[in-house]
Amino acid sequence: MSRPTYAERVARAGLSRVGEPDDSALRAVVATVGVVDAWEMVRASDDALPARLRARTGGRAAGADPGADLERLHALGGRLVCPGDDEWPASLDDLDAIGAAPLAMWVRGAGRLDALDRSVAVVGSRAFTAYGAHMADAIAGGLADRGWATVSGGAVGVDGAAHRAALVSGVSTVAVLACGVDVIYPPSHRDLLTSVAAAGLLVSEWPLGCSPMRHRFLIRNRLLAALSRGTVVVEAAVRSGALSTARWAQRLGRHTMAVPGPVTSAMSGGCNQLLRETDAVLVTDAAEVLELVGDLGADLAPRPQGAVAMRDALGDEARRVVEATPVRRYVTPDRIAQTAALPAVRVTSLLNQLCAQGLVEVSDEGFRLAAALRRAR
Amino acid sequence: MSRPTYAERVARAGLSRVGEPDDSALRAVVATVGVVDAWEMVRASDDALPARLRARTGGRAAGADPGADLERLHALGGRLVCPGDDEWPASLDDLDAIGAAPLAMWVRGAGRLDALDRSVAVVGSRAFTAYGAHMADAIAGGLADRGWATVSGGAVGVDGAAHRAALVSGVSTVAVLACGVDVIYPPSHRDLLTSVAAAGLLVSEWPLGCSPMRHRFLIRNRLLAALSRGTVVVEAAVRSGALSTARWAQRLGRHTMAVPGPVTSAMSGGCNQLLRETDAVLVTDAAEVLELVGDLGADLAPRPQGAVAMRDALGDEARRVVEATPVRRYVTPDRIAQTAALPAVRVTSLLNQLCAQGLVEVSDEGFRLAAALRRAR
Repeated sequence: MSRPTYAERVARAGLSRVGEPDDSALRAVVATVGVVDAWEMVRASDDALPARLRARTGGRAAGADPGADLERLHALGGRLVCPGDDEWPASLDDLDAIGAAPLAMWVRGAGRLDALDRSVAVVGSRAFTAYGAHMADAIAGGLADRGWATVSGGAVGVDGAAHRAALVSGVSTVAVLACGVDVIYPPSHRDLLTSVAAAGLLVSEWPLGCSPMRHRFLIRNRLLAALSRGTVVVEAAVRSGALSTARWAQRLGRHTMAVPGPVTSAMSGGCNQLLRETDAVLVTDAAEVLELVGDLGADLAPRPQGAVAMRDALGDEARRVVEATPVRRYVTPDRIAQTAALPAVRVTSLLNQLCAQGLVEVSDEGFRLAAALRRAR
Repeated sequence: MSRPTYAERVARAGLSRVGEPDDSALRAVVATVGVVDAWEMVRASDDALPARLRARTGGRAAGADPGADLERLHALGGRLVCPGDDEWPASLDDLDAIGAAPLAMWVRGAGRLDALDRSVAVVGSRAFTAYGAHMADAIAGGLADRGWATVSGGAVGVDGAAHRAALVSGVSTVAVLACGVDVIYPPSHRDLLTSVAAAGLLVSEWPLGCSPMRHRFLIRNRLLAALSRGTVVVEAAVRSGALSTARWAQRLGRHTMAVPGPVTSAMSGGCNQLLRETDAVLVTDAAEVLELVGDLGADLAPRPQGAVAMRDALGDEARRVVEATPVRRYVTPDRIAQTAALPAVRVTSLLNQLCAQGLVEVSDEGFRLAAALRRAR
């Protein structure tokens, strides 16, 4: 596809102003006559257009000034990325194949839209638990540590935690919005979205000033799925919009993953359902995500352990737990709590962390020191 | 197969005294000459036996008195169930097909071994968490409510909780032991094992008096898998023996299921690994277990709700939470905690319970009343 002309660019900006991305009548007109003529017809309220489409787009078309929109976008440091542009990502062509490609992407930020080849969508509910916050941080942070970008929806909850973890690691992160890239939504994310723009990208298929309407989130979700190599649902209730992103990922042949959670937490119900009823793969950390979406060889290297160095860097309580944990025999957390003279709940939590760090081992009968520490003791 | 003669019964009792069930040399002799002659050869330390087998079984054979063993078993109210007996369950023939059938089953209790057609193995780690205890109770109890028996290993932890839940519901439960059915192991389960014998069955392939040795648990696990229609791993660390039961279930073509748990809990690591790496199906309650192992029609009926009646039966705090939960709009647990003037942690826990009972609904944005209560309010 050749580089778009200015007229095409204006037409795509104009069409994205007058119709929603899932307007199939508008899509049909574009497919038949091309974007430039389609925009002319809509602007002129051409009789050849279906009456309903004319009625639907007439009001918006009268007030539309895509040339001015583009100038405002440039003034904000943004740009309109269209099919044919160098920055147009090949991944969006998969949406073209199912008749769901965006007309254009309104983009703002330091990153590039075509640099998302090594990216994963990390999504979840807005109302999340401490567990969801922890897992979003662990997975997006772990991906960032390995140079992978996180794509998410900019919402509060899991999305926000995922963006933040990527930002902390200094890796690009992309917020795909259901409103204009100049609209701060949710309002509490003013600083976060500013940081995302500075280090990565704010992306939308809606023009400047558009509000985040309910149905737009669902349409937007297909872009989260399409732009990344795979989607991880971190924590989601059974009615979460994050599940629609997962369904789009499955439809697009992208890897679909979910973090399991306790059955007793309704906030993990959607993740567990996804794992139960679909081909989604259960993942527990970033390494497992990359085992699926990563490049063979480059991303599958085992992580260095350094257990002894890690032990020496432990906090006070954790060190007491390590000292109270036997070398050979597995014992229960209660026994370790007794020896360490710490509350059992706290000891269980620390043992789980130590286990994740590879410092203790767990079996049927409880915990003992990991091999590396057994040798060191 | 015809009913076994007394000589055959004695031979099977004798052979199970002198060799472990995974002794392939002994198995080969039995397959070649039959149980009666095999027992005669072992007892006489026949030169035709492989030298190693003779060395292995000689000492035990000298002290063996299977006739007296059977008398002691009968005196305890037990019986030896052999292939050809009415009580021999057809399910064990699947082990025969892979050369792993038991010689005989030492059985003690009020139940019948051939009445396990509607049973599920519910297994897990000995060191378990409150979550594992809750889920074992919920699943074994839910199965019992629907008339399904629970098969488990009689151990502390998940096994014990599963047996107890079945006993409370007055449904048969079967403990498949790695020691003689007269041996109380673990010692803390004296009362539990007595109750299991009274309401169900204690089962073993080892004769009276045999100790629970480490390798016996792994051999035993194939019987747990074979005797039931499917195996559910409730909570298990990555090195748990419960995973070997799951692998046997898969090898035998039985349904294999696991309850997911938080990634942050090492005690759920084995369950999550099973779900990630094998065909095991994620289950969250007894209804989902029966959806897999149950009979079409008989076991798939939707459960009655009765939400309004359930609301009226709630405790004080739960009622306050219900009253603080909005009818239409979803709100966060924090908001509900504020309105109800209860601690947020407690409210989250109650909301999850209410959700499981179908009294509140959960979405991306939080919780609201379920439809049945919305109409009732």
